[in-house]
Amino acid sequence: MYFSKSFIPILKNNPTEAKIKSHQLMLRVGMIKQSSAGIYSWLPLGFKVMKKIEQIVREEQDRVGVQEILMPTIQSSEIWKESGRYDDYGEEMLRIKDRQNREMLYGPTNEELITEIFRSSIKSYKSLPQLLYHIQWKFRDELRPRFGIMRCREFYMKDAYSFDLSDEDAFFSYNKFFLSYLKTFKRLNLSAIPMAADTGPIGGNLSHEFIILAETGENKIYTDKRIFDVDYTSTILENSSLEKLRRDYEKFYSVTDEKFNKAEFENKVPTEHRVNTKGIEVGHIFYFGDKYSKPMNASVDFNGKKEFVKMGSYGIGVSRLVGAIIEAKYNDKDEIMKWPISVSPYDCAIIPMISKNDSSNLEKSNKILDYLKSKNIDPIIDDTDENISAKIKKFNLIGIPYQLIIGKKTEGELFEFKEVGEQTQKLKIEEIASQINKAKSN
Amino acid sequence: MYFSKSFIPILKNNPTEAKIKSHQLMLRVGMIKQSSAGIYSWLPLGFKVMKKIEQIVREEQDRVGVQEILMPTIQSSEIWKESGRYDDYGEEMLRIKDRQNREMLYGPTNEELITEIFRSSIKSYKSLPQLLYHIQWKFRDELRPRFGIMRCREFYMKDAYSFDLSDEDAFFSYNKFFLSYLKTFKRLNLSAIPMAADTGPIGGNLSHEFIILAETGENKIYTDKRIFDVDYTSTILENSSLEKLRRDYEKFYSVTDEKFNKAEFENKVPTEHRVNTKGIEVGHIFYFGDKYSKPMNASVDFNGKKEFVKMGSYGIGVSRLVGAIIEAKYNDKDEIMKWPISVSPYDCAIIPMISKNDSSNLEKSNKILDYLKSKNIDPIIDDTDENISAKIKKFNLIGIPYQLIIGKKTEGELFEFKEVGEQTQKLKIEEIASQINKAKSN
Repeated sequence: MYFSKSFIPILKNNPTEAKIKSHQLMLRVGMIKQSSAGIYSWLPLGFKVMKKIEQIVREEQDRVGVQEILMPTIQSSEIWKESGRYDDYGEEMLRIKDRQNREMLYGPTNEELITEIFRSSIKSYKSLPQLLYHIQWKFRDELRPRFGIMRCREFYMKDAYSFDLSDEDAFFSYNKFFLSYLKTFKRLNLSAIPMAADTGPIGGNLSHEFIILAETGENKIYTDKRIFDVDYTSTILENSSLEKLRRDYEKFYSVTDEKFNKAEFENKVPTEHRVNTKGIEVGHIFYFGDKYSKPMNASVDFNGKKEFVKMGSYGIGVSRLVGAIIEAKYNDKDEIMKWPISVSPYDCAIIPMISKNDSSNLEKSNKILDYLKSKNIDPIIDDTDENISAKIKKFNLIGIPYQLIIGKKTEGELFEFKEVGEQTQKLKIEEIASQINKAKSN
Repeated sequence: MYFSKSFIPILKNNPTEAKIKSHQLMLRVGMIKQSSAGIYSWLPLGFKVMKKIEQIVREEQDRVGVQEILMPTIQSSEIWKESGRYDDYGEEMLRIKDRQNREMLYGPTNEELITEIFRSSIKSYKSLPQLLYHIQWKFRDELRPRFGIMRCREFYMKDAYSFDLSDEDAFFSYNKFFLSYLKTFKRLNLSAIPMAADTGPIGGNLSHEFIILAETGENKIYTDKRIFDVDYTSTILENSSLEKLRRDYEKFYSVTDEKFNKAEFENKVPTEHRVNTKGIEVGHIFYFGDKYSKPMNASVDFNGKKEFVKMGSYGIGVSRLVGAIIEAKYNDKDEIMKWPISVSPYDCAIIPMISKNDSSNLEKSNKILDYLKSKNIDPIIDDTDENISAKIKKFNLIGIPYQLIIGKKTEGELFEFKEVGEQTQKLKIEEIASQINKAKSN
């Protein structure tokens, strides 16, 4: 791809309306564009990152046996009246009247709709467990949308739902998601810690938020730094292994301010292990038993007896993660962003010095591009006539993790190559390709 | 995947509310479930087909150099007032007031929003052409939604937009999509013919509908059967080659009833070549010059002069194509569906005869599954205890194109294998895998 042909509208300066670094950076490098308050269009750079995150989330759901479906964005109010949440939900729910004057709404979450799908499809306990997810746009009519896509109105979310016969089975399902979330965030190069959380409007009595540390986070968190060393890599998809994992995490005090208790914190966490900082919620899982299945009459036949199914729900903010990764990885003082290679919009930026009457560096770039593509690497060439330092500054912001610079110092077979923010190396193209592919396979 | 574990709620009989075969079949084999009038959830079988169609559409857009973005579903009314379409659009537009009492709407199409994105991002003619697309949910508040996902309210669509400096450049862009659409539908195993069409509420003076023949189609069509023999396979992405392609098609009279003129039809088409039948619109492309760019002031600087950009738009109904393929491929008299392998939910159904005290056929099935997976084939095993003829009948409806039957007649290394609707063969597993993979690579 040529930079000049791609739709990447770069701003010269940080937009004044943006207050946090992810919002600033996403506007500045043309990842998103606001279309109205709290509603954004995703331009190619931002879209590519979001799609890669979505795909990782999808693969990790599939891996624990969750099946993908897709529910619509517009729902009928009727099922929300059945569950009793229609009036509770307040003004954050975008309510709509269609041309026939029917009460509709833009789904802020899908417990009701999935329960309706379940109850009309599954009749016997033999079909349990059922684990279903979808990745779909949601709408919450925030009073004051802010921080770009971090607290917006239309957002992209993965939400999953589990249906089981008993509490024990349901905890097994819950724990599958617990493990799956740890693996998902790890692939995004984020250290997300699970924290006991309030259940809010979703309801239930068991819930964990997955939080990444970031100074600009909206959640205050109190934790024990040993929680970062809990090892889940040997956990397998089996009941006792998963339970052990939950216990390993729950050994350490770790809560957001909603659940904070000073005495308990100081009692349970030795001074040297205390962490009191801020974080961003990137996932939230809930167990709420029959909260929806009972009022909505979602039951299965169990040896002639009617049993309301036990349900949980499991969310990951896919669009929010784009911003969360920036908050975690962007050094705004030096204006250097570095995307994890797993979600970077391109794998490598080829940055040639181009002068008006000499296209030799551009030709070299084209050859490099072809070679890298043959090695399954996705590069972008900056074919503009900006000077080389302006180009490098621009790509430091865009955050593609590798830069290959073709300038005056390029001699023979050796190219200037660097990981963003690191020292320049002089390497052969084969070495460059193998270094990038090594990073991609991690 | 085991059938018993997958979420495929099969109905015993055709649902009485469904009037056309795609609607009947999709409900019957649990591909979709209606959530409210004209609004559907996509269950795993339907979702898989739609995602595969989406991916083919995406690849063919990328191949002609269109860049993917994503615009939101909810738009502000302001840009529609700028273009003048806010009042024109009538009750099909789902109008919404948010909590601040702002006039919003659920986008039925995106000419306004993309023009707004373009005008705030692109300033110079040097950045032209720009070709952008997105695949997103749209809403049209049909008075009488019917025929399942063929004429529903919330639907999934690929819409692309082109921006050029001159009419000539814009025709070049238009023709790129023309070719791209022929290739897209071919990969879906559909014979779609381009027909001169009215432009309706989109506007402009050049437009083609892409129509597939189907008895249940809503469009009457009048065409010359020689149009099916036009060969586009040697056309390349170059102006004169693309123009020749358009001329090759336009040589033949081919219109929908909106444009039908009896005298012209009879004059231009010899009796033996006349085709007068029905069809389904699966794509529609438009050229409308400065219809939006002028009122919305989307211009570029061309050597100091302000030029309004020339625009076109290009739609493919992704969700509708699921139904259109069924209309084209389903034999409802014999109750036999056969998905094109490129979009089939699974590549092969493994159908063992299972009796209560004998699991040997299920064990054989598991081994076959592992082998086929190792050859990049995606099978599903029917592990239920239904009798074998009921299973085969069910899979004839589901429409996975290949069935591998493990019953009484299975001896030694030879398996009963058939393409749906064809004769059974006795083949070794290696031959079966290579036959399926040959079909997949076509």
